[in-house]
Amino acid sequence: MASNPILRSTGLFLLVALFICPSESRRVQQITTMSFYLQDLASGRNATVVPVTGISGKNWSFTTFGTIFVMDDLITETPDRNSNQVGRAQGILVASALDGSNVHAQLSFVFSNFNYTGSTLELQGASRQFERYKEISVVSGTGAFRFAKGYAIFETIYYDPRISYSIIRCNVNLLPS
Amino acid sequence: MASNPILRSTGLFLLVALFICPSESRRVQQITTMSFYLQDLASGRNATVVPVTGISGKNWSFTTFGTIFVMDDLITETPDRNSNQVGRAQGILVASALDGSNVHAQLSFVFSNFNYTGSTLELQGASRQFERYKEISVVSGTGAFRFAKGYAIFETIYYDPRISYSIIRCNVNLLPS
Amino acid sequence: MASNPILRSTGLFLLVALFICPSESRRVQQITTMSFYLQDLASGRNATVVPVTGISGKNWSFTTFGTIFVMDDLITETPDRNSNQVGRAQGILVASALDGSNVHAQLSFVFSNFNYTGSTLELQGASRQFERYKEISVVSGTGAFRFAKGYAIFETIYYDPRISYSIIRCNVNLLPS
Repeated sequence: MASNPILRSTGLFLLVALFICPSESRRVQQITTMSFYLQDLASGRNATVVPVTGISGKNWSFTTFGTIFVMDDLITETPDRNSNQVGRAQGILVASALDGSNVHAQLSFVFSNFNYTGSTLELQGASRQFERYKEISVVSGTGAFRFAKGYAIFETIYYDPRISYSIIRCNVNLLPS
Repeated sequence: MASNPILRSTGLFLLVALFICPSESRRVQQITTMSFYLQDLASGRNATVVPVTGISGKNWSFTTFGTIFVMDDLITETPDRNSNQVGRAQGILVASALDGSNVHAQLSFVFSNFNYTGSTLELQGASRQFERYKEISVVSGTGAFRFAKGYAIFETIYYDPRISYSIIRCNVNLLPS
Repeated sequence: MASNPILRSTGLFLLVALFICPSESRRVQQITTMSFYLQDLASGRNATVVPVTGISGKNWSFTTFGTIFVMDDLITETPDRNSNQVGRAQGILVASALDGSNVHAQLSFVFSNFNYTGSTLELQGASRQFERYKEISVVSGTGAFRFAKGYAIFETIYYDPRISYSIIRCNVNLLPS
């Protein structure tokens, strides 16, 4: 499959200079923005997100309170799953809402390409799974991302319900460290 | 039930200006303090904190090493569980001490009221469950709380052992971001 | 057993003044470095790290995707397990890589000695278990370590495969808060 040429020409790591002032004590700063895509398969022998425990006697799913999943999604440069590999999104997801609305996420983005091989971003947050845009916090990082702080916006841009396959755009916004 | 009038008049989000100097490199700053209450039910059909796994053959409890709980506590403005809803405290608790003393917590406070609807605070810490005051770190946040940093003090102010029902005061202290 | 006299004379908490400049917006700063040792036993009745769940029908191990461990390692001042107790390393480890390479860690270092009794450091990261040096992020802390930010480097310096016993050096590097 050919990848989207517009996205390719944009490049993986887009530096966006923004003048922001989140509080009086913080000076004008640049925010770094990165965009990439998670390839997420929730069923079958090659699933990248798998339930490992939950409430006994209940159906383990993202909307069943108590279910815990372990996840290892491929991260790619463009929506095309055969595009350049950026890394892996690894960690746990917890169906943490009694009403099925939210999933608590604890993830490491483990980079394996470009200038970031061996570095990670560390994320924690509550994914509002029925909202279009889900914001998860970037709590820290390692390697090139030591002392990172920021947030990530997730949006599912493709879904195949037959095999529970999703392509998820992730925009990461980082404060200068 | 009538809620405590003194607490009501205080309001949910109390801004306390404190002059602190945690290190020579940090200037005099204001810390923002918020107070609210967790309604925590650990037994029965309507439990808000439920064990989902643990060491095989052992009794799964907060003092049995290895037990993992998923939690979704209602957060209210006052100790009265019928007072204004502030949000939900969602995530996991892990009985992480061989001697039963500590519980490792990974939580999102998901706000649904006042000026904070759609925002979260992200917490991680070791709750010393036999101490009166438990300090858990606020590692970050989303929405209105992006780049947040601080700590939360938890204190159980009411406990009904017949149904394992607790009301827990939570004071959150945030540095300016 | 006598502990290593060279390490003892170094002392637990070694303050290293480093002139660093991670970005133009950050001034010259001092990084605080601490060194200590984790005593890690992964088998037997006295194990300090125990699998509690995983993918049904699979062998639960650090290289089997989906396995979740709960951990409570003794932290000592020197490699000698009978040296001064510094605290405990408590939390969860998740075999989070489909290829078995990485373990996602969520840990609290709970201190019980020296000037840090009652304080914690909070860590999150992806441990590359087949690399010599594993970097995990310090996302925050409590007590004396409130608002902490930094990183920890782990290195296994001793391993007894008969009983799955490891001694792991941990160097923690903290920015001034």
